[in-house]
Amino acid sequence: MSQFWSPIVHDLDPYVPGEQPKVANLVKLNTNENPYGPSPKVLDAIRLGVSDQLRLYPDPNATQLKQAIADYHHVEMNNVFVGNGSDEVLAHIFHALFQHDAPLLLPDITYSFYPVYCKLYKIEYQTIALDSNFAINLQDYQTNNAGIIFPNPNAPTGCLLSLSEIEQLLQRNTESVVVVDEAYIDFGGESAIALVNNYPNLLVTQTLSKSRSLASLRIGFAVGHPDLIEALVRVKDSFNSYPMDSLAISAGVEAFKDQDYFEKTCRKVMASREQLTSELIELGFDVLPSSANFIFAKHSEHDAEQLALDLREKGVIVRHFKHDRINQFLRISIGTQEENQQFLTILDGLV
Amino acid sequence: MSQFWSPIVHDLDPYVPGEQPKVANLVKLNTNENPYGPSPKVLDAIRLGVSDQLRLYPDPNATQLKQAIADYHHVEMNNVFVGNGSDEVLAHIFHALFQHDAPLLLPDITYSFYPVYCKLYKIEYQTIALDSNFAINLQDYQTNNAGIIFPNPNAPTGCLLSLSEIEQLLQRNTESVVVVDEAYIDFGGESAIALVNNYPNLLVTQTLSKSRSLASLRIGFAVGHPDLIEALVRVKDSFNSYPMDSLAISAGVEAFKDQDYFEKTCRKVMASREQLTSELIELGFDVLPSSANFIFAKHSEHDAEQLALDLREKGVIVRHFKHDRINQFLRISIGTQEENQQFLTILDGLV
Repeated sequence: MSQFWSPIVHDLDPYVPGEQPKVANLVKLNTNENPYGPSPKVLDAIRLGVSDQLRLYPDPNATQLKQAIADYHHVEMNNVFVGNGSDEVLAHIFHALFQHDAPLLLPDITYSFYPVYCKLYKIEYQTIALDSNFAINLQDYQTNNAGIIFPNPNAPTGCLLSLSEIEQLLQRNTESVVVVDEAYIDFGGESAIALVNNYPNLLVTQTLSKSRSLASLRIGFAVGHPDLIEALVRVKDSFNSYPMDSLAISAGVEAFKDQDYFEKTCRKVMASREQLTSELIELGFDVLPSSANFIFAKHSEHDAEQLALDLREKGVIVRHFKHDRINQFLRISIGTQEENQQFLTILDGLV
Repeated sequence: MSQFWSPIVHDLDPYVPGEQPKVANLVKLNTNENPYGPSPKVLDAIRLGVSDQLRLYPDPNATQLKQAIADYHHVEMNNVFVGNGSDEVLAHIFHALFQHDAPLLLPDITYSFYPVYCKLYKIEYQTIALDSNFAINLQDYQTNNAGIIFPNPNAPTGCLLSLSEIEQLLQRNTESVVVVDEAYIDFGGESAIALVNNYPNLLVTQTLSKSRSLASLRIGFAVGHPDLIEALVRVKDSFNSYPMDSLAISAGVEAFKDQDYFEKTCRKVMASREQLTSELIELGFDVLPSSANFIFAKHSEHDAEQLALDLREKGVIVRHFKHDRINQFLRISIGTQEENQQFLTILDGLV
């Protein structure tokens, strides 16, 4: 606390990311990273950029990256906004599009950064409860609102909405922006980017941190109507002209080219997910149906927080959230086959 | 314009950075980049980081980079804040420390991003005129204020304030935060970081984009009292948990280690600056005394905007600002000896 702080700073409730441990040899299943590295072609593209030219500012518009994303998703460049991770993209979305005289609607169980942005930008919000199966029911999002945001699949549940459910929401909700946060869409869902040309109030965000194995380089993007993109550009250009460094731009461009590698690694993660799910069920867990690169599971007889601590002691980190409704669940990122096996072996000794 | 925009978006007046041209073979003296590349050891450190480990999130606190900066500047880690370029650091400073019931004070001729941040965060500001020599006179900053910010040396003039002038300001102005933006300090000035332990309201920002030749990688930082740093951390952790990518962190750490290379390149730039200054004077220019890696010069007989256009046509880009008081000046970044010579030869044909 300090007299020098802007008043807003006293009220903030900053986001706490999952632990990035400094010790090696842990089985790290806590922050939904891809167990496989980026495409070797991506690594080559980065190496090519390591030169004296790093003395120059990067392209402030990251044109090549926007073009690569536009080409990949069959939209125009002016439908694309890029940022320093999808967290930065989301921050600008909250600032640029959600400050209106009504509450923002979001699920009660969801990405816990959303309420943090609301505090930062003084946005009132209203949570809508997941149904009894921990699924988002978009029929419940019918009150007057400043906007609607939800991840698809949802985090930390992993549960997926169909494209037709999202389209029905868009048909009902035409007066405010609907943001679909697709951080995990590539692990089994269908992207709402297919709908952006029909709904001028739809904005879809994605990240290269999960399915494209580039969490380290901080690359996220949004796709939507050019008017929505323009709002984001105006905020970005009032905040930081050059948010994307040149190595991230090169890596991102290449990541959209190596489709084979992308599909192969996504398929491996999805296959591991199904296998891990069935083995957890065998160990007495209830597992929510996941379309993400993690699963959300609860044991009928063992306290989740205690299990997380016991696992940690034996060298496995998973994530536990203290929120009442989900405090008996563990969120377990999908690792390599070997990591998943290590995890299961240790878990078997605990339950 | 769109019904979906937050009201604030309509009022923004985004910053326009200097051109990053897509054609090669231009003599690029327009955005104050270092003419020399980063230390070869920095390039090696980046290459070492290009691996499968890019799949993992970076350290959200960039601990190693903070430690390197703290060691270099003889302060503690909790005196240091890092961000995605000093533009991001400045944005968080405006948000976290300048929203109070009084105007922010800044020079009338200065880094033109400051008023842009003010619009983004709804901060009232008051400009204080440079004196007749285009120097900042800190005696003039004595009105009630929400904070004071100025670059030292100032941009785009290059003029330097002494440490004792800054200390006198700090002795007079104890009730609000004073930010000294030292983007160019390594080209001849003395850093106010030496004063942070004595003045709890002093915050000093620097960047690795200029003297450390890493504009491409977006690394900036602030040094000040832990209470000021905490405000920045709270805002940062409410905006983006991981603003610094892992390659930028590694590059930054190494950049503070290779002191020889740093000193050698800074000395070369300063020597070129003095030589260029004397040759411009010979060509009929008035040149302000610069302590930066650029010079600000005006010709008694030739219109600056026209000169900039003519230079551009012949393959040299310099920067011209339309602000009334300085619209007869050109801002010329210091290039390599060869670039400076090419520029002078072309200029000689125009004046």
